[in-house]
Amino acid sequence: MPVNLEPPEHLDAIAGVRLGATSLGVRKPPRDDLTLIAIPEGAAVAATFTRNAFCAAPVIVAREHLAQKMPRYLVVNAGNANAGTGERGIEAARRVCALVAAAGGCAREEVLPFSTGVVGEVLDTRPFEAAVPRAVAELNPNRWLEAGRSIMTTDIVAKGFSCGFEAGGRKHTVTGIAKGSGMIRPDMATMLAFVATDAAVAPPILRAMLNEAVDESFNCITVDGDTSTNDACVLVASGEGATIDGSQAADVDALRQAVIRVCTFLAHAIVRDGEGATKFVEVRVTGGASREECRQVGYTVAHSPLVKTAMSASDANWGRILAAVGRAGVRDLDIGAIRMSLGDALIVEHGARAAGYTEEQGAAVMAQPEITVHIELGRGDADARVWTCDLSHGYVTINAEYRT
Amino acid sequence: MPVNLEPPEHLDAIAGVRLGATSLGVRKPPRDDLTLIAIPEGAAVAATFTRNAFCAAPVIVAREHLAQKMPRYLVVNAGNANAGTGERGIEAARRVCALVAAAGGCAREEVLPFSTGVVGEVLDTRPFEAAVPRAVAELNPNRWLEAGRSIMTTDIVAKGFSCGFEAGGRKHTVTGIAKGSGMIRPDMATMLAFVATDAAVAPPILRAMLNEAVDESFNCITVDGDTSTNDACVLVASGEGATIDGSQAADVDALRQAVIRVCTFLAHAIVRDGEGATKFVEVRVTGGASREECRQVGYTVAHSPLVKTAMSASDANWGRILAAVGRAGVRDLDIGAIRMSLGDALIVEHGARAAGYTEEQGAAVMAQPEITVHIELGRGDADARVWTCDLSHGYVTINAEYRT
Repeated sequence: MPVNLEPPEHLDAIAGVRLGATSLGVRKPPRDDLTLIAIPEGAAVAATFTRNAFCAAPVIVAREHLAQKMPRYLVVNAGNANAGTGERGIEAARRVCALVAAAGGCAREEVLPFSTGVVGEVLDTRPFEAAVPRAVAELNPNRWLEAGRSIMTTDIVAKGFSCGFEAGGRKHTVTGIAKGSGMIRPDMATMLAFVATDAAVAPPILRAMLNEAVDESFNCITVDGDTSTNDACVLVASGEGATIDGSQAADVDALRQAVIRVCTFLAHAIVRDGEGATKFVEVRVTGGASREECRQVGYTVAHSPLVKTAMSASDANWGRILAAVGRAGVRDLDIGAIRMSLGDALIVEHGARAAGYTEEQGAAVMAQPEITVHIELGRGDADARVWTCDLSHGYVTINAEYRT
Repeated sequence: MPVNLEPPEHLDAIAGVRLGATSLGVRKPPRDDLTLIAIPEGAAVAATFTRNAFCAAPVIVAREHLAQKMPRYLVVNAGNANAGTGERGIEAARRVCALVAAAGGCAREEVLPFSTGVVGEVLDTRPFEAAVPRAVAELNPNRWLEAGRSIMTTDIVAKGFSCGFEAGGRKHTVTGIAKGSGMIRPDMATMLAFVATDAAVAPPILRAMLNEAVDESFNCITVDGDTSTNDACVLVASGEGATIDGSQAADVDALRQAVIRVCTFLAHAIVRDGEGATKFVEVRVTGGASREECRQVGYTVAHSPLVKTAMSASDANWGRILAAVGRAGVRDLDIGAIRMSLGDALIVEHGARAAGYTEEQGAAVMAQPEITVHIELGRGDADARVWTCDLSHGYVTINAEYRT
């Protein structure tokens, strides 16, 4: 069960952005698995994609299209990732874009395709022929909740968040949805996240903002260390509100904070709904010589199967955390300088168990569903945070049975 | 249950090397958990240790002692790793060496200590006071099987292997024992392995041979990616047989092959007895630009929780293997050049499923307890092999319950 995560009760509409969801029949009906997001003319769109060398066909096509035109439609199918499908997969992704373009009245290059699900099966485009016009007919600004549900695969809970901000003396909104639960160790983006605001934002500002927000949120999470072939994160500025062109620093900052807040909520939500998750764990690494080495330590701890199974068992097995820090590849690490806390309990100093620490303190922290591990390296001023979940029997069950 | 692994029925004695095992009472009696290995005067000893920055107290002390004298005794306790124990841990390791030196009649620096078990508890040396003299009294050249059993922790099956070779026109032997099952991703050595031969080998040759053998065997395995704090591998040449000083290349080569064979058997045995293992998997990577990048790909596949859970479920989910190859960090990887086979079945070419591949072929391979994944990168002549096991419910159970 997800850790302290409920589906959103309400998501604010973004003026100009319309959404539609329907069933392709890939996921079991009545579950919708086709999602359309319509973007008004004149909007700005920024996107980041997976850096997995085996990126999926829709990622290849979306990158191509984004380089040519500002998108008018995002089309997402769940259940089939259309990855590892070679030329036929690329043709299928292009065909889906063509169907959306025909039904929506735009050029094929104005459509960005996204797919999530099983890897290695070419996407069957025939069901899209009837489904796409249905989704176009249903487009509506108040369908964010439905869209959040229809992009899910192994997710248990839909993920969405809205956040207000002020710019140009007017109220604005950022709303985002995301999906992701396994194959989660984003590298420049997460599985799929779609975030939009009603402000009018200059494209270079929007791109910089997306990169910063992704770096602070999706790029700090891991469920199982497996970077997906289909990761993508899109930020849309519909242009219906105030113009944010960089002339008002306060407006840029207000939007930036709102985007980071939405992305961070969604990134945490993915971890909370991580496959088999029973714990939400923050690994905070401070006192590093560089942010890079702090992340390296954080990810080594967050990926350690021994640490993750101990978390699952609520076992304050700090020796495993220490062993992971020790193998993280940090040069000239001084063990004596390291301090480690579990929640409020100081557990390690001078390379050994802290004098006042008792097993009871550790057990009390580990009994909670939310756990912070703080590792102070004592060699500089840099820090980083990585969010992860535990490794439970649930994870093994889900991934041993996913295709069967 | 271990994959195709039985305990050794017989291990050949090594002239000059004597072994003794007894109970310290840390592991439940009647299980022995204290092991002594006595080495004759004039023998040569080489050793490699973990590169984990948090190396355990016995590793620190063993390195110190080895730099000063040729060892006369190796002392091993199971159940407590004496790691993450700071200064008190180092004092405890020194005290154990002093007790062995007193009972065995040598200097403290001629004793190398080894510990394996729970991390973070200072080793209680009091039980050693009575146990060490008992172990000394039991020293006998025919106790390799008992020693193999008494160094075990979560291992299900004892691991040992003997291999003959000829040098100087005489028959010689290499015998080795090892322990290890979890926290296995050796970095220059494995959990604990003790290998001995009766030949007289010049120390520089012995050291080079150990490094080569470890690089080909223990450094190619992984169970969970967690490099231990206590890894050590020791190679003893007792000096009772022919002299191998490099003047006869054929003798050096015969010994090298025997040492590699013993180390490879032991390394495979550790994987076969990996925590929760139900499959023994060889990841073979060929056609790389360097051995380094082949290993990188091999380890990324072997560490992927998604690949390992698919193996556990006998699911030929090749998309997960492809995704792992894609995120391994190989620069300018050409997807179209990659070919991948599962056993004899060609499964991927040109970035997609191979034309003739059927799910039945994949299922037939995956149903076996021993699986070979062959990834041909198509960019050079280098190759590497990594051996690993699957990730099963058994792994989670063992590691969630280890301390409780």
